[in-house]
Amino acid sequence: MTPCVAIGIDFGGTNVKVALVSDGGQIIAKASGPTDAKAPPESVIAEMADLAKSLVKSAGASADQIVGAGLGSPGPLDFRRGTVVHSVNLPTWENVPIREMLAGRLGMDVALDNDANAAAFGEYWAGAGKGGGDFVLLTLGTGLGAGVVVDGNLLHGYHDNAAELGHMIVVPDGLPCGCGQQGCVEQYASASAVARRVKHAIESGASSVLSDCVDGGEAIDSRHVAQAASDGDPLSLRIWDEACTFLAIACVNIQHTFNPESIVLGGGMSEAGEFLLERVQREFLRRTWRLESDRPQIRLATLGYDAGVIGAAGLAWKRSGK
Amino acid sequence: MTPCVAIGIDFGGTNVKVALVSDGGQIIAKASGPTDAKAPPESVIAEMADLAKSLVKSAGASADQIVGAGLGSPGPLDFRRGTVVHSVNLPTWENVPIREMLAGRLGMDVALDNDANAAAFGEYWAGAGKGGGDFVLLTLGTGLGAGVVVDGNLLHGYHDNAAELGHMIVVPDGLPCGCGQQGCVEQYASASAVARRVKHAIESGASSVLSDCVDGGEAIDSRHVAQAASDGDPLSLRIWDEACTFLAIACVNIQHTFNPESIVLGGGMSEAGEFLLERVQREFLRRTWRLESDRPQIRLATLGYDAGVIGAAGLAWKRSGK
Repeated sequence: MTPCVAIGIDFGGTNVKVALVSDGGQIIAKASGPTDAKAPPESVIAEMADLAKSLVKSAGASADQIVGAGLGSPGPLDFRRGTVVHSVNLPTWENVPIREMLAGRLGMDVALDNDANAAAFGEYWAGAGKGGGDFVLLTLGTGLGAGVVVDGNLLHGYHDNAAELGHMIVVPDGLPCGCGQQGCVEQYASASAVARRVKHAIESGASSVLSDCVDGGEAIDSRHVAQAASDGDPLSLRIWDEACTFLAIACVNIQHTFNPESIVLGGGMSEAGEFLLERVQREFLRRTWRLESDRPQIRLATLGYDAGVIGAAGLAWKRSGK
Repeated sequence: MTPCVAIGIDFGGTNVKVALVSDGGQIIAKASGPTDAKAPPESVIAEMADLAKSLVKSAGASADQIVGAGLGSPGPLDFRRGTVVHSVNLPTWENVPIREMLAGRLGMDVALDNDANAAAFGEYWAGAGKGGGDFVLLTLGTGLGAGVVVDGNLLHGYHDNAAELGHMIVVPDGLPCGCGQQGCVEQYASASAVARRVKHAIESGASSVLSDCVDGGEAIDSRHVAQAASDGDPLSLRIWDEACTFLAIACVNIQHTFNPESIVLGGGMSEAGEFLLERVQREFLRRTWRLESDRPQIRLATLGYDAGVIGAAGLAWKRSGK
């Protein structure tokens, strides 16, 4: 017999991923489908529910083997109401009661959180934070996303907008950010930021092994920068090191705010592995205070792109109380 | 008949304050006595208990009118064990099981937290945060102390050292801090920091209306700086404004970490009132992101030096469940 599972749904602007996840955080079966970002919310939610139901069916699971469903959704969300307030990637979505609509279609309770929080809960519950205590995930992608777990619960804040750690100011009057601030850490230490900073430096005349790509109009990303930096390209290495330094400063600030057991680095930039982690750890130790007893562990994420579905399912397991 | 009260104890390196506090956070009676920092912990705790018992007696309260006791203590503390690990101001104290010892002497349960957290809980429960949601207190004194309340609970962190917000780095490679870091916000925006920065500038040749005091060997504090700044002394005004700017940056970072309903400014520097608050609020609005819906209220503390005893009593009320 199939063991009990929770349905995890990772709803993105491009794809929807669904998985059946055991109470140990293992994926038993998964499926995905495209998101039609222009379709009415009703039909997007109906397709999401159908994808989940056909996965349950193909896995041969009966209704009493499903403990519930969890959903990670683009936001901002209103957690009390269970609505998507709006979304950059889903232009027609305004105050959509997604939790209730999906619960109705699935015939079961749905645990809802935003995509960054679902991924953080996944890493906390079944990945790099498994078995540990208070936990912070930094996702180094297009921006610097984050999720914080305190006493086993995701932190939402009074206005549902806690853990926007990418917008922590680390350089007073520093680089402008799309959010309206200056000096946000995500302008220095996200996958996009390192690629953008190398590109701008080359366009301003700096020499680099990446000059040919940039001059030829090719898009560069953080993987190119990490590779060039580890090959010794001075420009790439300087910008990579600066990113690691600002991540280390962010880790010091997280140490003194949440004082977590671990801070985990995920997202595209974390694919550089030890070339990222070792530099962040070294700079963290150089910059944090002398007291040694309250230092967080800094680790790499382990679930990759599955963190979101696993975390969504983890929220369903948590909600079920099983 | 006297209404039910909790005993609040604010244990400092110089004085012990005790109060009987109603469930609305009103002080019904209070007393204080000196702390003999060199005496053995047993006798200090015995005196603290005697002070509380004689206050209860003089207020005519019977045992069944006391719902419990709360204690704000210097730390660091081990919350699980209820011990004072050590204390700068109490040199002979090492791993003292203060919670158990005081409970034994008083004959009732004791809720324990550190002094900064007790003051924060006081302002949250009965002061500037009363009736609101998630809450952060910044105490601008010798250092920059802080306490954070999330979902009604003080935040402790995995290593019992959360909310050390004075050691948030706001200037990479900035001013050295006694903690071993560089650029901690408390080096720019505590009562001591503004006085020290004015003093150093004068000693380096800057002119100021405070030059005579400094050259004559008089101690200056943040009150002198605030007064000189509001009288138009350019040096004092520049350093006061910089302190307000760094406090505003700290508030932006707190907005994006905890996303609280309010951030409250207390401690000696907050005695400047609107001359502090208005500048911090203005600079906060200039520096935070465009989104308006998640902005914390920034307010002045209202309980002054009673925040600690009131908060300690509040923790006892909370623990009693009444």
